Amino acid sequence: TILSHDSLMEDMVLLETNIDDTTSEILGFTMEKLFENGAADVFYTSIYMKKNRPAYMLSVLCRKQDEEKMADIILRETSTIGVRRSVVKRHVMEREVIKVNTGIGDVRVKISTRGDIKKVTPEYEDCRNIANKTGMPLISVYEHVNRYMDVETQGTKNRYKGN
Amino acid sequence: TILSHDSLMEDMVLLETNIDDTTSEILGFTMEKLFENGAADVFYTSIYMKKNRPAYMLSVLCRKQDEEKMADIILRETSTIGVRRSVVKRHVMEREVIKVNTGIGDVRVKISTRGDIKKVTPEYEDCRNIANKTGMPLISVYEHVNRYMDVETQGTKNRYKGN
Amino acid sequence: TILSHDSLMEDMVLLETNIDDTTSEILGFTMEKLFENGAADVFYTSIYMKKNRPAYMLSVLCRKQDEEKMADIILRETSTIGVRRSVVKRHVMEREVIKVNTGIGDVRVKISTRGDIKKVTPEYEDCRNIANKTGMPLISVYEHVNRYMDVETQGTKNRYKGN
Amino acid sequence: TILSHDSLMEDMVLLETNIDDTTSEILGFTMEKLFENGAADVFYTSIYMKKNRPAYMLSVLCRKQDEEKMADIILRETSTIGVRRSVVKRHVMEREVIKVNTGIGDVRVKISTRGDIKKVTPEYEDCRNIANKTGMPLISVYEHVNRYMDVETQGTKNRYKGN
Amino acid sequence: TILSHDSLMEDMVLLETNIDDTTSEILGFTMEKLFENGAADVFYTSIYMKKNRPAYMLSVLCRKQDEEKMADIILRETSTIGVRRSVVKRHVMEREVIKVNTGIGDVRVKISTRGDIKKVTPEYEDCRNIANKTGMPLISVYEHVNRYMDVETQGTKNRYKGN
Amino acid sequence: TILSHDSLMEDMVLLETNIDDTTSEILGFTMEKLFENGAADVFYTSIYMKKNRPAYMLSVLCRKQDEEKMADIILRETSTIGVRRSVVKRHVMEREVIKVNTGIGDVRVKISTRGDIKKVTPEYEDCRNIANKTGMPLISVYEHVNRYMDVETQGTKNRYKGN
Ligand code: NI
Ligand code: NI
Ligand code: NI
Ligand code: NI
Ligand code: NI
Ligand code: NI
Ligand code: NI
Ligand code: NI
Ligand code: NI
Ligand code: NI
Ligand code: NI
Ligand code: NI
Repeated sequence: TILSHDSLMEDMVLLETNIDDTTSEILGFTMEKLFENGAADVFYTSIYMKKNRPAYMLSVLCRKQDEEKMADIILRETSTIGVRRSVVKRHVMEREVIKVNTGIGDVRVKISTRGDIKKVTPEYEDCRNIANKTGMPLISVYEHVNRYMDVETQGTKNRYKGN
Repeated sequence: TILSHDSLMEDMVLLETNIDDTTSEILGFTMEKLFENGAADVFYTSIYMKKNRPAYMLSVLCRKQDEEKMADIILRETSTIGVRRSVVKRHVMEREVIKVNTGIGDVRVKISTRGDIKKVTPEYEDCRNIANKTGMPLISVYEHVNRYMDVETQGTKNRYKGN
Repeated sequence: TILSHDSLMEDMVLLETNIDDTTSEILGFTMEKLFENGAADVFYTSIYMKKNRPAYMLSVLCRKQDEEKMADIILRETSTIGVRRSVVKRHVMEREVIKVNTGIGDVRVKISTRGDIKKVTPEYEDCRNIANKTGMPLISVYEHVNRYMDVETQGTKNRYKGN
Repeated sequence: TILSHDSLMEDMVLLETNIDDTTSEILGFTMEKLFENGAADVFYTSIYMKKNRPAYMLSVLCRKQDEEKMADIILRETSTIGVRRSVVKRHVMEREVIKVNTGIGDVRVKISTRGDIKKVTPEYEDCRNIANKTGMPLISVYEHVNRYMDVETQGTKNRYKGN
Repeated sequence: TILSHDSLMEDMVLLETNIDDTTSEILGFTMEKLFENGAADVFYTSIYMKKNRPAYMLSVLCRKQDEEKMADIILRETSTIGVRRSVVKRHVMEREVIKVNTGIGDVRVKISTRGDIKKVTPEYEDCRNIANKTGMPLISVYEHVNRYMDVETQGTKNRYKGN
Repeated sequence: TILSHDSLMEDMVLLETNIDDTTSEILGFTMEKLFENGAADVFYTSIYMKKNRPAYMLSVLCRKQDEEKMADIILRETSTIGVRRSVVKRHVMEREVIKVNTGIGDVRVKISTRGDIKKVTPEYEDCRNIANKTGMPLISVYEHVNRYMDVETQGTKNRYKGN
């Protein structure tokens, strides 16, 4: 079954702020809050600031309409008082998500294409659930799903030119 | 006493350069020079470059009028021969700085506001001086100042909605 | 109510392994598995390996009796084929956990002592639940609990000498 | 063909040194020299030292008989004047290396076992050569080899218990 | 002999992508491929993503005409399905490359100038070859070349104002 | 003038602790306190802990007799409640410190030797003072001192074998 079919993405906003007076526990919680409110991506980078302060930069990628909401969460949850923003474009592959029964459980799989490039990405949460239920290592679950997709759709074989 | 009252900040310039042939000692000194000459922020990020080189990216945030001066310092003090630059905007909170007598010493405190968000930030240097003078842990000095501000201005209580 | 009272900890085993052929998704899952099976601490450090490989070192701190179980999980879930091990001792504070009703919800609080040092640590999960239920920023919940403990037990005031 | 068959490894020496006055270019070269002279592993970790110095820690894992040679290279090539050393043990899997003809070229493959855990690791250099010769993405080469090994030896299927 | 003489550089494109499902081995290979195809710079930064995933951001700096080729390599070699892009300007020094006979071997040296700033950068590959051929530490080769240039061109003396 | 002459160093203690609930400002201050009280080295490493917490590991290298004092400072200034410790040995070079008049100011220089290896390290603080007083880039000051030492003591020439 095809569950979704995204078109090429529009412009995104990148919010960044350096944080030197908030604890790691608060930073972990803030990431959670940002994702719950629609952030496309959230990540931390270790930076070294003045006065021997090992600190973190928070980066949030979001849609333009979510920018003020994201800035609000950052300013409310952390100690920062300013947030940098810039606009970025994105090269994206065409994507669709299908659901397949792989023999060890149902797994959503994302099929991404761009010209002759084709990729097959099993959904992490589905693979994780199977790993937890069966006791299989997560990597074995991925391998199982990839083998299944390989037979069904010639998945990764299509990855390279002239295939 | 109100010591200053900043308005919302204008556009800033972000200068970045990857450095793989300068020592850490020089990088520390360069940060110092950039701050002395008016940089708004300076920080280093660990990056991994070609030929197995663990290196650092230098980032400088400054006002437009300081851009050439900052680029000059970077090119003069480090071995880099090129500096990337982009322009970023900033969401900032309204800020004012007041001085309070907290019982263990005078401390400047920054009050930042945006809509219903209100933050109280004791000045690091003032707290550090009290910690060094009294032998109290720095974190205890911050806690003392925050308790004082809490009573005086209902500081952090105002942080969340519906306060 | 006193919920637990730990004595000084014994020797611990530190397991470390450099991982350059496992994905980040698998690394996140492996951390989860290690904690579920009794690891005292698990963390990743970014390292730079040969052939321009940005990689991660996995570190696991565990009790001696859990060492083989931890090594097994690492070897099963990741691609690594060897795990370094060393034994470390730990200086630890005396700890007890109590439960307090702070007015905005019940919170477990860890009281740690060593000589004249006394620390009060609100339990993250309890504070997080209150933040999620009330919409308060997590940092405000911590501040609320700390103020409550301060009144009840003179918490952080006891932190420094001669208090 | 079986090319080698290692037994469990003995004690190893871990050398570490913090470097704040050597450039990245020299660090990359030093890693090369250490591997050429028999280091088992060499890696760099980003650390933050005094006086705002973003620096790197060099770690070298070697056999006991190579310790003085390694220390010599570190002291000769870098600016450091002291090298920490400790001894670590290792949990290792039984390993053997075989050579297989996978249809797209010969590839050495390492087979590692420990109890019921079995892993199949294609040799990086061989896969890289095939990727460069054929224009296939490296990841597709790995996938091809893994599929081949899967059929031949039930490779990764043997990874998990009760398989 | 003057080997080249670059003018000030034009606008560059910065491509960035967060990668959490590709191994370190593949990342090292991808860097190689990007440089072979004309990237001006390629580097990795350690980032911390959701679900406890320690991951890497890939950054590629390239000319505008190479952008689609670079995006293609990234999308083909790694598991990522989207690449952010922004345009940056660069402050660059005037550069020319000369070849000098320093007594221990021929070395290309880059002379960079901007106003009164003048820098002398020996070519890494040439110095590395001499180090490998003679057994001298690489840092000694650099020092030898710098002393030679100092005599010949008053190299580093010209670095600072009023020289 | 010879200012000091160290013999080979004895065993050292390495203290380490993971910190996820202390701010960067406090971490910077703690480093300062540790150095003031006799730490041989102090540094921070970025680590990734559970619950999406980007955190820091504090490492302190000290003499055995200073161990309890260092543990006390760590436990007093930060939020951590446990400190790991292990004992490391060190390979060190013979060192002596001399003071030289280099023409642009007096500079202490450390001369380190081990077998045929000889290194010359100008003292950072002295070079920094000259850079600040003269406006010369710090790197030019180092270069000036190294040229002076090269003439006086054949410094770096002695670095490599067969010199
Ligand atoms: Ni601050
Ligand atoms: Ni495109
Ligand atoms: Ni270079
Ligand atoms: Ni705004
Ligand atoms: Ni490998
Ligand atoms: Ni103790
Ligand atoms: Ni130094
Ligand atoms: Ni074992
Ligand atoms: Ni993913
Ligand atoms: Ni310019
Ligand atoms: Ni904690
Ligand atoms: Ni030795």
